[in-house]
Amino acid sequence: MEDHIVRSYDEELKYIMRRISEMGGQAERMVEQSVRALTRSDFSLAQSVVADDVLLDAAQRELEERAILTIAKRQPMAQDLREIVGSIRIASDLERIGDLGKNIAKRVMAVHEFGQPVQLTRGIEHMAELALDQLKDVLDSYATRDTDRAEAVRARDEDIDAMYTSIFRELLTYMMEDPRNISACTHLLFSAKNIERIGDHATNIAETIYYIKTGQQIEDERPKGDRTTSMVLPVNAATDK
Amino acid sequence: MEDHIVRSYDEELKYIMRRISEMGGQAERMVEQSVRALTRSDFSLAQSVVADDVLLDAAQRELEERAILTIAKRQPMAQDLREIVGSIRIASDLERIGDLGKNIAKRVMAVHEFGQPVQLTRGIEHMAELALDQLKDVLDSYATRDTDRAEAVRARDEDIDAMYTSIFRELLTYMMEDPRNISACTHLLFSAKNIERIGDHATNIAETIYYIKTGQQIEDERPKGDRTTSMVLPVNAATDK
Repeated sequence: MEDHIVRSYDEELKYIMRRISEMGGQAERMVEQSVRALTRSDFSLAQSVVADDVLLDAAQRELEERAILTIAKRQPMAQDLREIVGSIRIASDLERIGDLGKNIAKRVMAVHEFGQPVQLTRGIEHMAELALDQLKDVLDSYATRDTDRAEAVRARDEDIDAMYTSIFRELLTYMMEDPRNISACTHLLFSAKNIERIGDHATNIAETIYYIKTGQQIEDERPKGDRTTSMVLPVNAATDK
Repeated sequence: MEDHIVRSYDEELKYIMRRISEMGGQAERMVEQSVRALTRSDFSLAQSVVADDVLLDAAQRELEERAILTIAKRQPMAQDLREIVGSIRIASDLERIGDLGKNIAKRVMAVHEFGQPVQLTRGIEHMAELALDQLKDVLDSYATRDTDRAEAVRARDEDIDAMYTSIFRELLTYMMEDPRNISACTHLLFSAKNIERIGDHATNIAETIYYIKTGQQIEDERPKGDRTTSMVLPVNAATDK
């Protein structure tokens, strides 16, 4: 942990916000690189994502400790307190996004054995682009305290969910068509699920921004995420295409 | 949020510990019921698990707010501070365990359509028993501050990982044998992965208990979890059995 001499509460807050933005950049990069590694079978890139996860975990721990010490020392109230609590929550979402990227990276080898199912990874690539846009947008909303933009991020999560549903269906169909696809498609299914969850974490961050600004939870219950949990494909789906 | 008149720091701490133990009981019940719903195709039990998740989420938020207010008000240091920080981390792990249970519950219908693959859900049932034992044990260690027992929980996580690896292999084999198994087995794969992650959260809690007691992270890097990420089954695995 770096030793910072912090002079004012304001500076402590700025330090925490800067660290969140750095963590956000790291998490974005991990997701982007893990998906690139998957689509290009780039094993050394995949390995570097796995290694980077250790740094993001350490950054989260450091931020959490820092934030808690600030609360104990400064006893902030109202929005000031929410700023700090919010930073702890956001750091935790970013750390989990990094974990999900790492998990995708670890599947690169197994997907490659299949021999580059380009048409399959393309859907995942596109889904990852959406999720990364969401992540960038929500980190910008955090930096600018723009709750409207944060709410827009939250609303757009449905697009990722819809894309996940379609990829889920597609992957199952490929599995049914040819049992040789099953191993690789299983790893791609888990990768797609990971990206869907990255979208959920971007949504969590949007909700935290709203909470910091207003002290309230966003009211309308949005049915978050995965609509594939009840999905059963008839076996002839493979031949119906 | 209940209105408690809290008289001393000690009582606040006791309140927080009691709430963690209640949340632990809820999380255990959700996991146990979700797996029971899965193996017996009990849809109403599955629905009640989904409904319970809202309560666990609310309990986590309440505990977090409470803990943060205690830090701001009492400015605890050293182990006292770690107690509170630890309670926030444990509540977050318990909330995620509840989420994973809910996700299993949501798959009950899709698995049932397949028509009761008893031999398949049996493995998952057994894996869930292990994970629940781990969870019970780690919650007891938290209540009694028994770091030896917590370390034993952490060491045993390997057993869950090994069982997950074997279930992963088994489910892929069933998928390769008959494409009609693919839909249900996919949902069972996700369910098994969820249980593997529940084990990881029990391990996180064990590590938090160690941190509360000692102020240190457990040193030895344990390669946590999922060894299936690089697993590819040859197609003839299905016929080799």
